[in-house]
Amino acid sequence: KFFFDSGSAWFCVFAVGIWTGVTSAVVDIGEGWMSDLKFGLCQRNFWLNREHCCWAIPSHNCTDWQTWPQIFGADHSMVGHFAVDFGFYVTFAVSMAVFAAVLVVFIAPYAAGSGIAEIKCILSGFVIRRYLGVRTYAVKMFGIILSSASGLSLGKEGPAVHLASCIGNITSRWFPKYANNEAKKREILSASTAAALSVAFGAPIGGVMFSLEEASYYFTFKTLWRSFFCALIAGLAVRGVNPWGNSLPTLYHVEHTIRWVVPELIPFVVIGILAGLLGSAFIKLNMALCAWRKSSSISKHPIAEVAFITFVTTILAYSNPFTKMSSSLLIRQMFNNCGKDSTPEFCYGYPLESGNVFYYILGALVLKFIFTTVTAGIKVPAGLFVPNIAVGALLGRLVALSTQWLVNNVISVDSYKGYCKMGENCVTPGLYAIVGAAAVLSGVMRMTVTLVIIMFELTGSIEFVVPTMIGIMFAKWVGDATHPVGIYEAQIDLCGYPFLDNRDDETVEASVGDLLAVKPNRELIVLEQAAISVGRLVTLLRDTSFCVFPVVTSQEEMIVVGFIDRVHLERQLAAQVVPDQNATVVFGSNAISAGPGCLHWEKLVDMAPICVNVHMKIEIVVEMFRKLGLRQVLVTNNGHLLGVITKKDLLKFVRHN
Amino acid sequence: KFFFDSGSAWFCVFAVGIWTGVTSAVVDIGEGWMSDLKFGLCQRNFWLNREHCCWAIPSHNCTDWQTWPQIFGADHSMVGHFAVDFGFYVTFAVSMAVFAAVLVVFIAPYAAGSGIAEIKCILSGFVIRRYLGVRTYAVKMFGIILSSASGLSLGKEGPAVHLASCIGNITSRWFPKYANNEAKKREILSASTAAALSVAFGAPIGGVMFSLEEASYYFTFKTLWRSFFCALIAGLAVRGVNPWGNSLPTLYHVEHTIRWVVPELIPFVVIGILAGLLGSAFIKLNMALCAWRKSSSISKHPIAEVAFITFVTTILAYSNPFTKMSSSLLIRQMFNNCGKDSTPEFCYGYPLESGNVFYYILGALVLKFIFTTVTAGIKVPAGLFVPNIAVGALLGRLVALSTQWLVNNVISVDSYKGYCKMGENCVTPGLYAIVGAAAVLSGVMRMTVTLVIIMFELTGSIEFVVPTMIGIMFAKWVGDATHPVGIYEAQIDLCGYPFLDNRDDETVEASVGDLLAVKPNRELIVLEQAAISVGRLVTLLRDTSFCVFPVVTSQEEMIVVGFIDRVHLERQLAAQVVPDQNATVVFGSNAISAGPGCLHWEKLVDMAPICVNVHMKIEIVVEMFRKLGLRQVLVTNNGHLLGVITKKDLLKFVRHN
Repeated sequence: KFFFDSGSAWFCVFAVGIWTGVTSAVVDIGEGWMSDLKFGLCQRNFWLNREHCCWAIPSHNCTDWQTWPQIFGADHSMVGHFAVDFGFYVTFAVSMAVFAAVLVVFIAPYAAGSGIAEIKCILSGFVIRRYLGVRTYAVKMFGIILSSASGLSLGKEGPAVHLASCIGNITSRWFPKYANNEAKKREILSASTAAALSVAFGAPIGGVMFSLEEASYYFTFKTLWRSFFCALIAGLAVRGVNPWGNSLPTLYHVEHTIRWVVPELIPFVVIGILAGLLGSAFIKLNMALCAWRKSSSISKHPIAEVAFITFVTTILAYSNPFTKMSSSLLIRQMFNNCGKDSTPEFCYGYPLESGNVFYYILGALVLKFIFTTVTAGIKVPAGLFVPNIAVGALLGRLVALSTQWLVNNVISVDSYKGYCKMGENCVTPGLYAIVGAAAVLSGVMRMTVTLVIIMFELTGSIEFVVPTMIGIMFAKWVGDATHPVGIYEAQIDLCGYPFLDNRDDETVEASVGDLLAVKPNRELIVLEQAAISVGRLVTLLRDTSFCVFPVVTSQEEMIVVGFIDRVHLERQLAAQVVPDQNATVVFGSNAISAGPGCLHWEKLVDMAPICVNVHMKIEIVVEMFRKLGLRQVLVTNNGHLLGVITKKDLLKFVRHN
Repeated sequence: KFFFDSGSAWFCVFAVGIWTGVTSAVVDIGEGWMSDLKFGLCQRNFWLNREHCCWAIPSHNCTDWQTWPQIFGADHSMVGHFAVDFGFYVTFAVSMAVFAAVLVVFIAPYAAGSGIAEIKCILSGFVIRRYLGVRTYAVKMFGIILSSASGLSLGKEGPAVHLASCIGNITSRWFPKYANNEAKKREILSASTAAALSVAFGAPIGGVMFSLEEASYYFTFKTLWRSFFCALIAGLAVRGVNPWGNSLPTLYHVEHTIRWVVPELIPFVVIGILAGLLGSAFIKLNMALCAWRKSSSISKHPIAEVAFITFVTTILAYSNPFTKMSSSLLIRQMFNNCGKDSTPEFCYGYPLESGNVFYYILGALVLKFIFTTVTAGIKVPAGLFVPNIAVGALLGRLVALSTQWLVNNVISVDSYKGYCKMGENCVTPGLYAIVGAAAVLSGVMRMTVTLVIIMFELTGSIEFVVPTMIGIMFAKWVGDATHPVGIYEAQIDLCGYPFLDNRDDETVEASVGDLLAVKPNRELIVLEQAAISVGRLVTLLRDTSFCVFPVVTSQEEMIVVGFIDRVHLERQLAAQVVPDQNATVVFGSNAISAGPGCLHWEKLVDMAPICVNVHMKIEIVVEMFRKLGLRQVLVTNNGHLLGVITKKDLLKFVRHN
């Protein structure tokens, strides 16, 4: 029994790990191919992307890969070349985005967005039916391939978390231990979440920390270890399927030679402050936009909206060299340093020859920020990680350029002599970009340790931990001061999910009695344990919408016997051919007045309700709801029932105080 | 208010970080000097250790450092040299250990051992007065310098955790936010714990995970971030104070070229299984020894015991080349590979020339294991990390030697051809030692993710994560199967602290009623809210030892009003000159029979007790105790009080079922 139980847990996370890894590899390969399809096609094998089409062939000799102008013979006239190239590019981009939107709107509406906000709610105990089903999984997988290939400003890491949660949910149905136990199932979902982000960033510990810090509500020590295992298996699986994969760890790999000096902490603090402001601005704008979208007539034409936004994004992105390239390439180049192997366009000194790189980067930052704000919320699968990393990297480079300019022009190099030699670049802009990326993510999502660890795993050097921490810390402080919650909590608020945030202390100076006094729906409907007829029960269920009914000894005494779920009552009433509408229903096993002909429904009653005293402090009640995963408590005083408090009542009260 | 609150939290962890770092550096420097004192003295400046005495001088030219035989002119006769050398060595070792024991026994008994078990209890809400005081701190600091310099088989990492907790406790007294709030203070203690282990292993993330996985009971997200900050500050502080420090990260640094192949997973599993068995054996033997020590007359002569064990350890350690050297040096050499820079004595092939290295390592393993088992529990500050790492490294090398022998002699090299070339060593013994160290720690302490992360941070390569995880996983499985709990939980059991383990699910199929039925002390003493005289109250307090008394409406009705702490009652009785022993005390604010001349003690009563229903499942009650940090609950049925369940009652019941 012990070995079977323990074994099924490990087998389940093993299966989830493999499946998550394979899904991630499929999405990577699909997106790579689709993304290249905007530019051309492999003539030998059409299913190969540019890289694999020209595998082991120098790119200028690779005749197998043909661009659309080449295929259509429009390569010789410059106007024709541009028309075919740009035409195909825009057409493919818009069609892919529209196809993704069609899939989402008509087949699985839950596949839209990143899904992390909803998964937070699910992991806190809220049930959203079909959110983690097979259909959502399939649509999200194809949708994210299409939408990320379309060139919209979105990432595939958030959706990967949703995909992995679907996988966790579907897999856990095969194991009896998990199929019928929601709490246990959440353990598997936590592990899936960890695996998804581990694979997305090639950072196993970072993934587990993400699950712990951001996604999961309850996180036991068993889950910790299994999440780690799941993350590792997923990492091995993705390497097995897609060994050439241009996975993010390679993408973000940074040379170990980067060094920083103590005075640079000032620009890092500046990055942090700007990132915090940017993060809050993003949340505020995005929320305003989402609210406006909901209320306006746009909400009736989601597909047209996607088409329009894709079209505008594609056109505008062409105007700036930094937005023209893919986000991954942009990030890779921003994280690079100004050394022998780097692209000179991003580096200080370049502007002297050809226009001012500072303004280009600033322009790209503004464009990326606007694209990301507008894109988050449209009806395609869309994550927030990569776009915000791009914004952060641009911000970091901007601060690096400014610092370099300050050092060269304002501060005499002599006073800075201990730190850098004349003529050399004193600033390592790649490091600034890394700090910026982490800080903007922190400003938007309000994560902390997870981001430090992900950056640590990506760069592999403890040297970067201090700058990253400084940036993240200031971003979080400034962010919290300008907008109280992160983007996921804001989305949860917007959707009205009952989510009791477990990150901050509630300091409400009130008691349960104060809550009961202001509760809008104050009427207390109770069932007497042996004095209610079937007919009355049916009327009661029809007239009220309460989810639970307390059972008491009698209306006069009001001593709590237990409580009963509406669902159970309805099911019982539906199942049974009721002989007599006037038959008395008995709920309490110790009811004395149970005469003959009574219906004994004691089994429906939960005899051990959680009760709180009317004098109890709200803070303690909040703790109980959070930590024990309650949905309601009964309020008593001296043994007498005074009312019922649901999670929603509590949330509303805490928010208004 | 917000900024002051938040600021004081950060300032507090900052101070703790600095102080912890400085303490760690002082202990390191002190131990280095004392350790070298056994061999000789720096003639130029007696306060320098050998390394700093001969700083920048080639060791054979360093005349400043003189060994005892040189100082006493006994260097020319071999017998004299040996006599002086060995005599000083043994004398210093025994005196240091005895001095440490004297400090512990006469000044601060709580400074003995590692203290991690007690800190686990403290972090779970148990109060041990003076355990984290200034006196314990001072004695532990000097004691650990002495005891680890004496050459006993013990480490200074566990005591570092205790030291940091003292620092956290002392520092938090300066901040009003923490001084009067035990729950908040525990947050600081969690951060201190993280900082201590971070500094000890140079692994900031590993330290935080240690606090999360092993030490802390409640761990909020705020704590996570502050612990990380504290760990980082401590790391910077230790570098500031002791920049030459031979800190562990350097000690354990491994070349990045180590590779492993899939068939090697089999020896890694073998290491895991052996480590699990070794871990359980260690716990069982150590517990048996501690129990025997407690019952026998040895417990009356702790200092003599320390002297005896140190003497025997010193003599026996001389018999084996691997135990002769310090644990740190042993571990460093075991973790090294057999390459150009390594010491050949540990490598395969060496035995062909001079005796069998296998038996030497086996002998060292047995000796180290016995030393560690005997040492854990004597009255000096003593940690378990380093000795167990040494045991594990020896075990790993042993398996590596066996594997190499198998590959060379039993398995034909041809069938292994894909993996290693003839004549080369197929096995990288340093990696085996790392896996062994992690696995034995897991077998002894039953930690998992923490160990993977520490190993990851020490080696800096993701390559080692898989072997380490395999070793740890099997060690934990085998360990759990042969001895249910880790060493710290076993110590907690032995000491009888009320600690409700939060790592495993209790699957007790019983209700609160079942517990009440078997509760040994079943008599229910209640206070009536308005019908007890002062005299009766005094008698009650004298005759019973309950910590809390429930207050009810009346003996007949038994409806719960609240409960009252014994301490509050006693204090009130002591403070007040009671006018009349027959005066009635009123506890309930809604008591009707409150006549004139009554004493109104309503303020002493906690009007919002946590009550559970008699039908409630024990599992849920356990969750409530764990997650809400309760000490007792009142049991009711239909509003009537049936009994009180304390944490100890619950612990006893859960253990017996």
